[in-house]
Amino acid sequence: MSETNGHHYSALLERVYEVNDLRKAARVLSWDRETAMPQGGAADRTLQIATLHRVSHALYTSDETGALIEAAAGEINGAGYLSTQASLIRFLRRDYDQARRLPAEFVSKMATINGNAIAVWKEAKAKADFTLFAPCLEVLVDLASETAELLGYAEEPYDALLGRYELGVSTAQVDALFQAAKDALVPLYRAIGRRRMRVQDDLLRQHFPVDRQEQFSRYIAGAVGYDFNRGALATAVHPFSTSLSVNDVRITTRYNAFYLASSLFATLHEAGHAIYVQNVLPELNRTLLAKETSAGLDESQSRLVENMIGRSRGFWRAHYPALQRLFPEQLGDAPLESFYRAVNRVHPGFIRVEADELTYHMHVILRFEIERMLLNGELSVAEVPAAWNARMKAYLGIVPPSDDLGCLQDIHWAMVGFGYFPTYSLGSLYAAQFYEAAVSRVPGLHDELAQGEIDSLLGWLRENVHCFGRMLTPEEIALRATGRPLDHHAFVRYVSAKFGEIYDL
Amino acid sequence: MSETNGHHYSALLERVYEVNDLRKAARVLSWDRETAMPQGGAADRTLQIATLHRVSHALYTSDETGALIEAAAGEINGAGYLSTQASLIRFLRRDYDQARRLPAEFVSKMATINGNAIAVWKEAKAKADFTLFAPCLEVLVDLASETAELLGYAEEPYDALLGRYELGVSTAQVDALFQAAKDALVPLYRAIGRRRMRVQDDLLRQHFPVDRQEQFSRYIAGAVGYDFNRGALATAVHPFSTSLSVNDVRITTRYNAFYLASSLFATLHEAGHAIYVQNVLPELNRTLLAKETSAGLDESQSRLVENMIGRSRGFWRAHYPALQRLFPEQLGDAPLESFYRAVNRVHPGFIRVEADELTYHMHVILRFEIERMLLNGELSVAEVPAAWNARMKAYLGIVPPSDDLGCLQDIHWAMVGFGYFPTYSLGSLYAAQFYEAAVSRVPGLHDELAQGEIDSLLGWLRENVHCFGRMLTPEEIALRATGRPLDHHAFVRYVSAKFGEIYDL
Repeated sequence: MSETNGHHYSALLERVYEVNDLRKAARVLSWDRETAMPQGGAADRTLQIATLHRVSHALYTSDETGALIEAAAGEINGAGYLSTQASLIRFLRRDYDQARRLPAEFVSKMATINGNAIAVWKEAKAKADFTLFAPCLEVLVDLASETAELLGYAEEPYDALLGRYELGVSTAQVDALFQAAKDALVPLYRAIGRRRMRVQDDLLRQHFPVDRQEQFSRYIAGAVGYDFNRGALATAVHPFSTSLSVNDVRITTRYNAFYLASSLFATLHEAGHAIYVQNVLPELNRTLLAKETSAGLDESQSRLVENMIGRSRGFWRAHYPALQRLFPEQLGDAPLESFYRAVNRVHPGFIRVEADELTYHMHVILRFEIERMLLNGELSVAEVPAAWNARMKAYLGIVPPSDDLGCLQDIHWAMVGFGYFPTYSLGSLYAAQFYEAAVSRVPGLHDELAQGEIDSLLGWLRENVHCFGRMLTPEEIALRATGRPLDHHAFVRYVSAKFGEIYDL
Repeated sequence: MSETNGHHYSALLERVYEVNDLRKAARVLSWDRETAMPQGGAADRTLQIATLHRVSHALYTSDETGALIEAAAGEINGAGYLSTQASLIRFLRRDYDQARRLPAEFVSKMATINGNAIAVWKEAKAKADFTLFAPCLEVLVDLASETAELLGYAEEPYDALLGRYELGVSTAQVDALFQAAKDALVPLYRAIGRRRMRVQDDLLRQHFPVDRQEQFSRYIAGAVGYDFNRGALATAVHPFSTSLSVNDVRITTRYNAFYLASSLFATLHEAGHAIYVQNVLPELNRTLLAKETSAGLDESQSRLVENMIGRSRGFWRAHYPALQRLFPEQLGDAPLESFYRAVNRVHPGFIRVEADELTYHMHVILRFEIERMLLNGELSVAEVPAAWNARMKAYLGIVPPSDDLGCLQDIHWAMVGFGYFPTYSLGSLYAAQFYEAAVSRVPGLHDELAQGEIDSLLGWLRENVHCFGRMLTPEEIALRATGRPLDHHAFVRYVSAKFGEIYDL
């Protein structure tokens, strides 16, 4: 994939590098804000990040960039589909066009409204008072509609919003996938509910000193393939991963001294995100292609590491002894099987980010349904709490006692992030499909995984998913890696088998 | 100082804010590099910082910025000399003109040469082989000459280089000050040499666990007025302070488990830098004026806090008990007076950054003399080691056994930082002059300081030095605060009295 670059293509690369560096700088500023910044720096930091975004957006969406793309495109005829050159031009033509559809003033208006909305949302959540947030949410829905109109869509406004995070997937497709998943998951979840006493997680709810949890977080991140020479682990209230370059992809986690699962699975989840970007082809560095190709693909890698590896019996067969050595008083007497069941306990709750592997998707599906209705004018803002609670009742059998535990719990709407939620569940569907494909295509992999040996799996993911970055669309990657477009079957098979066994259904 | 801003002035402010934000972003990236970045991120980080500098330089030096300055200037007639508006215009007219004199291609060439030179210098230093660095140094001297020609100067090229860091001070002035200081310091140092056995520092050279040193660093930084709500303390190989906004000014220190003075005085020194910027007038935030007005003034505040406060008997009268409580085994039996003497031990050494308060200036003066001769063509690069060693012999009576302990020890030349060294000593001269002025003007201050009470001193510094940022030039600040331009008298009086007493001369 190393080509000699023509004059125009080189000029385009310089532009792309510049845009990339400015965006990465904004990420460094965000990382620093979450991990090191003193309180006093908050207001100025918001302005600094806004300036970086404004400058990079202006540079990227300039007429000059468009001319550079087309001049370079004229120069690379004959470059193979999987060459960096052809991939970059393909990506830029699509992405530049999308970025141009949102005028600078609109982006700036959105940033202002969003800054204000976050403050209002925080207050409303703290007071558990939806009426405080409702007027704001009206504006946010309008803004989302306006965004959809500017971006354009085929069937309904939600397509445009979804497309920002998951290229090539339509609302109708998501809806069909989610209906099918729901049809399988709700009965499964009900069956588990009747046998819920089989699995307890008390052993995770003891005192686990934070310094040793941190030690284990480093160990376990390394064990799933996270490269600390090109990464770092810090603490943050809301764990995240961030790529400051292909060679500097960092993760954060959080520690709860009285609940071990908190750091364990946050670390594994973020390590999964980070490993994806750490394994992008080195030659894509600084090109804008050195990134997860979609939010759904990104989430597929975090969920695969967190759940399919990190909550598997084989994995803990290999690593539970190390955990026991660190916490002999707490876990010395608990057998592997009890630990395995504890980390796979299914239990309904109000909060999405605390949900188990199974009920999690009910949280996502209800958000998708509500967002879509809001955008289609089928639901008014005032009706959101009732619609939310009715779905919680129908899908999980519980109703939040107040809206802070219900429709006010997530920051996404305040950030004008309509369309993002579905990608969380799409991630699990992709993950199961990739995992199943790997097991069927790599000889001996099933047995290796049963022993907690994951190198072959990671190698397969690297070659079939990670390395491409944004050279290929999520659809192209799924087709290439699994032989079929995304569907719900692998995921339903996976959860049915796993939880059927654990709960003896 | 709160004025209603006209249309043009507001537009200028927007531009200035943007330039400021981009520069601050570069600082965040540097801070992160020194405190958090994994090794793997180094190469990309260099490129990211270069991009930020290039973009901000282009924005700042554009014709448009010049037009904005002049349009705004036409609007603010009547604004007082100390108004933000008038001060900003005064500063920008001068600074914009200077920045325009260095074309983007030249700045870019400088960055490339400098990146390469640092690598060569590191190798030469590691191998203690000056001949490896010599060809590079030839290029660096040429580059410095070229810079001087582009910037322009009155008497000699070195004026231009010095002027980048210390506005309004000429090479001839520095030379006169340094000659006078040398005439006083060399005899003083010799007299001390004859009585050097009076002061030992063994008590600082015990095992001091790093976690408790860190605790004391936080305590002592707070004790000299550093505001942790608008700052943070981290560890770095080469301690530094950095302002990411007026409300986020951070410091780093280093810990040597077997030498307490290392963290103690690095922390105090960096806290001194940081306190300066933390006390700049809030309304200057984001304007480019919210910064130390010169390198010499900046250094005056770090040296004042490190030496005049941090190595004073009064200060340790107040804080030594807290240090003893943290290290009872190491210091419990050592009287205050022994500690006071230990931290004021005068001892010749090869390394500038490890030098004591007195011999430090000999290191600086010899660098200034060599730099100036190089720029004036009075010394060839090949002659540098001999010139260096001859001066070490003449001023301090010692000769480095190899060039890594001599002319290869500092990074400054590799960074094209010719002209910077003198500001270290100018800082001490300013510090003594400010300190003396404060004591003579604030009733009761002398007695307060003898008890380690520094609030009045800090208040005076805030009102007479810190608050102005770059509204005033260093010369204006010295005149306003002390009634006279910078001279060497206060410093000579201060060291003569202090060390005369300690060494019983």
